[in-house]
Amino acid sequence: MQNHKIPDETVHRLPVYLRELLTLQEQGIEKLSSQELADSLGCGCYQVRKDLSYFGRFGKRGVGYTTEILIREILNILKLNVPQKAALIGIGNLGLAILRYTGFGKYNFRITAAFDSDGKKIGQIIRNITIEDIKKIRTLKRRSVRIAILATPEAAAQQIADELVEAGVTSILNFAPCNIKVPKNVQVRNIDIAMELACLPFMASE
Amino acid sequence: MQNHKIPDETVHRLPVYLRELLTLQEQGIEKLSSQELADSLGCGCYQVRKDLSYFGRFGKRGVGYTTEILIREILNILKLNVPQKAALIGIGNLGLAILRYTGFGKYNFRITAAFDSDGKKIGQIIRNITIEDIKKIRTLKRRSVRIAILATPEAAAQQIADELVEAGVTSILNFAPCNIKVPKNVQVRNIDIAMELACLPFMASE
Repeated sequence: MQNHKIPDETVHRLPVYLRELLTLQEQGIEKLSSQELADSLGCGCYQVRKDLSYFGRFGKRGVGYTTEILIREILNILKLNVPQKAALIGIGNLGLAILRYTGFGKYNFRITAAFDSDGKKIGQIIRNITIEDIKKIRTLKRRSVRIAILATPEAAAQQIADELVEAGVTSILNFAPCNIKVPKNVQVRNIDIAMELACLPFMASE
Repeated sequence: MQNHKIPDETVHRLPVYLRELLTLQEQGIEKLSSQELADSLGCGCYQVRKDLSYFGRFGKRGVGYTTEILIREILNILKLNVPQKAALIGIGNLGLAILRYTGFGKYNFRITAAFDSDGKKIGQIIRNITIEDIKKIRTLKRRSVRIAILATPEAAAQQIADELVEAGVTSILNFAPCNIKVPKNVQVRNIDIAMELACLPFMASE
């Protein structure tokens, strides 16, 4: 499989397909066509068919896809076939919401470490995770955690990002409302809730 | 200004520019070139220049942009020059984090209504907002709230989305981890934290 040829936009849609397929599977749907998947998602069939075509012909013309196989293939492509460990930094309101969120399991993710700088929070146990002192970020290296969720205030974000990179983290999901600078080999995805909101009035007026 | 010609990708980058410009303005930077903005963002100058070119020539060759004017223009384009009201539905962990978040103001946003179905939460006041019974969503129509943030569990999301549309909401920021179906005139932006995380292992392996 030549994953490096899959366009970014397609990769970003794969989790959407995966989520829908998991829901359809729960509803007992064992087989489906790209048209049915598109209908269920409310998007165009052409796009779904094209996206799925990037990773080989495991659908059968006229028969469509076996839900279970399609799920497994997408998990493979997204490298979610093996359990993934993630660290969470910053246990404020948002960090707490993320720590308590139960939906990561279906993508084979588990938050295995949580850090904060607040002495009152350090040592607290939430969902079996003990909040650790932020000074211990460097221990992520030997704990083989390569993915981090950054939910600190803006002022701390860059320094923590530097420490995460130092500790061997290669992927950061950044919720801090600022741009963070990292070496080229480190991937960052940014989610700024206020900025997402800021796109809506324009979109609504189109 | 012919806003309808601005490509979606550009619109989605404008808030990123806006955020950076607001930060640079705070730092006392009154003028800047597209190159300087690009450097500050760590992205390509060509893209910044092209994006800014879509909305007219208010930058001067060799001189660049006046930060304040650029900010004002982007606010205008994004329709953030007038205060925007938003409703929040679902005051769980995530909803609470959103309600307590103070960063919306810089984009001229204000959460003016919050709803939940839990009797224990209804009536509580958080940041001057009284949590209302979810049955009162229909009052949004006369309160002229057209933007909603959906932070309910998955099971409730579609029904609430229907009620929001019924109440005149035209833009929804959906945090529920599922696809919601709305009429074509309603805009939806989806943020599924688990799904964002699900993209990372693939990206890191490229």
